[in-house]
Amino acid sequence: MKPYTTIILAITLFNYCTLAIASNWESLPETAPAPKDNPGTAEKVELGKMLFFDPRISSTGTISCNSCHNVFLGGEDNRPFSAGVGAQLGGRSAPTVWNSAFSQVQFWDGRAGSLEEQAKGPVTNPIEMGMKSWDEVVARLNQMPGYKIAFKKAFGNKSIITADNAAKAIAAYERTLITPNSPFDQYVKGDKTALTKNQVRGMELFAKVGCQSCHSGAAFNGQAVGASGFYAKFPIYRKNDYVSEYKFLEDGGRYQVSKEMSDKDMYKVPTLRNISLTAPYFHNGSVKTLKEAIKVMGQVQLNKSLSNSEVDDIHAFLMSLEGRFPHQQMPQLPGLNGGTFTP
Amino acid sequence: MKPYTTIILAITLFNYCTLAIASNWESLPETAPAPKDNPGTAEKVELGKMLFFDPRISSTGTISCNSCHNVFLGGEDNRPFSAGVGAQLGGRSAPTVWNSAFSQVQFWDGRAGSLEEQAKGPVTNPIEMGMKSWDEVVARLNQMPGYKIAFKKAFGNKSIITADNAAKAIAAYERTLITPNSPFDQYVKGDKTALTKNQVRGMELFAKVGCQSCHSGAAFNGQAVGASGFYAKFPIYRKNDYVSEYKFLEDGGRYQVSKEMSDKDMYKVPTLRNISLTAPYFHNGSVKTLKEAIKVMGQVQLNKSLSNSEVDDIHAFLMSLEGRFPHQQMPQLPGLNGGTFTP
Repeated sequence: MKPYTTIILAITLFNYCTLAIASNWESLPETAPAPKDNPGTAEKVELGKMLFFDPRISSTGTISCNSCHNVFLGGEDNRPFSAGVGAQLGGRSAPTVWNSAFSQVQFWDGRAGSLEEQAKGPVTNPIEMGMKSWDEVVARLNQMPGYKIAFKKAFGNKSIITADNAAKAIAAYERTLITPNSPFDQYVKGDKTALTKNQVRGMELFAKVGCQSCHSGAAFNGQAVGASGFYAKFPIYRKNDYVSEYKFLEDGGRYQVSKEMSDKDMYKVPTLRNISLTAPYFHNGSVKTLKEAIKVMGQVQLNKSLSNSEVDDIHAFLMSLEGRFPHQQMPQLPGLNGGTFTP
Repeated sequence: MKPYTTIILAITLFNYCTLAIASNWESLPETAPAPKDNPGTAEKVELGKMLFFDPRISSTGTISCNSCHNVFLGGEDNRPFSAGVGAQLGGRSAPTVWNSAFSQVQFWDGRAGSLEEQAKGPVTNPIEMGMKSWDEVVARLNQMPGYKIAFKKAFGNKSIITADNAAKAIAAYERTLITPNSPFDQYVKGDKTALTKNQVRGMELFAKVGCQSCHSGAAFNGQAVGASGFYAKFPIYRKNDYVSEYKFLEDGGRYQVSKEMSDKDMYKVPTLRNISLTAPYFHNGSVKTLKEAIKVMGQVQLNKSLSNSEVDDIHAFLMSLEGRFPHQQMPQLPGLNGGTFTP
C-alpha cells in the first residue's frame, strides 16, 4: 500500500473517531526537546539569536532569517511569498518559526529532518539570502571579533566558526520560540472562563467536523502521529471551485523533492498555533483571510460546506490559539571595525 | 555674506583654535531633550518601538524603519544605498538612528527640522517604504486592535490614530536610542585607563589636524555650533583624486532641497559616535572602510595627507566612540485577526 493511501485511510478512520479524539486536547509544552548532540545553552541561544537577526549573512546585507520568519509578528511575514535578496520571490509562503520546535520535519515538503538542517538552507538559496556558500558565510563571521567570542562561549575554546555550529546555534535559539498559555491552553488546563462561548462552540465544531484528523496534538500539526513527521494530501476533494481559484494543484508538494507519485500534493501539516497572525494561508499563500481558509479547508479536505456561523465559531476558536510570546532582549550584533561586506 | 562663506570662515577660524578646543571634549549625555509638545513617556516609547519595527507600514510589508536604520547594528544597514520596497535603491547612505536625538536637523541635507518631521518622510517615499499616503498608513493601523490600545495608552483616550501621533511616538522611541559610556566617555569622565596609548595619540591628532572644526560637541557632529543645525561644505579641497574617484560632487547636498547656489555641496555634519559600525562612509556610501574615510577626510576637508600611522591612530581613537547599547526588549506587534495587507 502506498504511503499516501495509508494516510488517507488513516484520515478516514480519524474522521470516525473524532468524538473520541475531541477530548484529547493538549496544551503546549513550555519547553521543546533538543537533540542529544545539540543541547540548548544560554550562550548558544544568544549566538543563535545574533545569527537569526543578522542581515550581513545575506549577499546584499538586507535579508536575515527574521526578514521572512519575523518573530515580532507571527513568526513569518504576512506575505504570499517572501521577498529575498533583490526582492526575488520564493515559491511558497514562509512557515512560522514560532513553535517550529514541535515539528518533526521542516519546510512545507518536510525536506529537512531537523531545525539544524533547515537553518542551513535559506542562507545559500539564491533567491532567499543569496550567499554563494557557507564557506563565504564562515569567512564573513570570522572577520567579526564579536562572533569569534560568541562562538567560543557557545561551543568551547577549541571550536571554530563552522556552518554546523552556526546552524546548531540558530536551531537552539528557535527551540526557545514557544508561545504557551494561550486562552486555549488555559482552558485545557482547567480555567473554563478562558474561552468565550463562541470559542468553545468552535472548539467542539473543530473536533466534530474532522479538523483534528490532521491538526491534532499540542501544536495542532499532527506531529504526534508519526515520529518522522506527518504529511497530508492537499487538496483531497477536488471537485469544487476553490482548487482552481487558489491554484492548489500547481505546486505538487513533497513530489518536488522525491519525484515519487505517491508524494504528489503531500504537505507537512502546518501548526495552527497563532494561525490568526500568519495570513495569508496555505503553501502558496493564496487565501487572504482566516475565515476564507476555514471555508476552503472544510470543502477541500473534509468535503463539507461550512455555514457562515460555523466558520465564525471555528475562527473564534482559532483566535484562542494565540499564545503568550516570551519577552526577548534584542541582540546587538558584532561590528566589523569600520568595514562592510556590501560591495 | 553667504551662509556657506560664513561657515568656511568659521571652519578656518576653528582650525586656528584647535589646540584650545582640544581640551573641550564632551561625554555623551545619557538622555536627550524632548520637544515641549512631545515629552517622552514609557507608553509612547513602546508604541514608537512597535511602529519602528513594523514592516506592515510599507506597501510590500517588507520594509520597516529598522530595515535601513538597523538598531541591532550601528543604526543603519552597512550599505552604500539602502534597499526599499522592491529592492529599489535610494540615492544617499542611510544615517544612523543611534544618537540621532542629538542632531538638530535630520537627513543628509537637513531638510527635516526634527525627528518627528523626519519620521514621516520614508514611509510615503515611493522607493523607501512606498505607502501611498499617511491616510493609508492610518487606515492600516486602525484595522489592528492592538494599535488602537497602544495609541490610547500613549496619547490618551480621546486621541485617535493620526500621522502626527505616529511620528511623535517614533521620535520618542528614537530619543531613547543613545549609546553613552564609550571608552572615550569613560576617559573624558576621568578613567585614564579607558583608552589605549594609540587611542590617546589618535585623540590628540584628531584635534590637532582639525577634525574638530566640524566634528565637535558631545556627538561629534558640531551641533553645539548652531541651534538650527550645522552644515559644512564637502568636499572643500577638490584638487585631488578622491573627489572624482568617490564621485563626491554628483549629489549637491542641501542644494537639492533649496536650489540656492550657496547650499551647493553643503551637508549636515554627521555624528562620529559608533562610526566604526556604520561603514560604508559619506553621503553616497562610496568609501568602504573607516581607514580610507579618514585619509579622504584629511585630504578633501583639511588638505592634509595623513601618514598610515596617523590614520591608524585616528582609527583607533574613533573605535573608542563605540558606546554602550541599551538593553531593549523586542516588541510584539499587533495582529490583524487572520488577515493581511499584502495583496
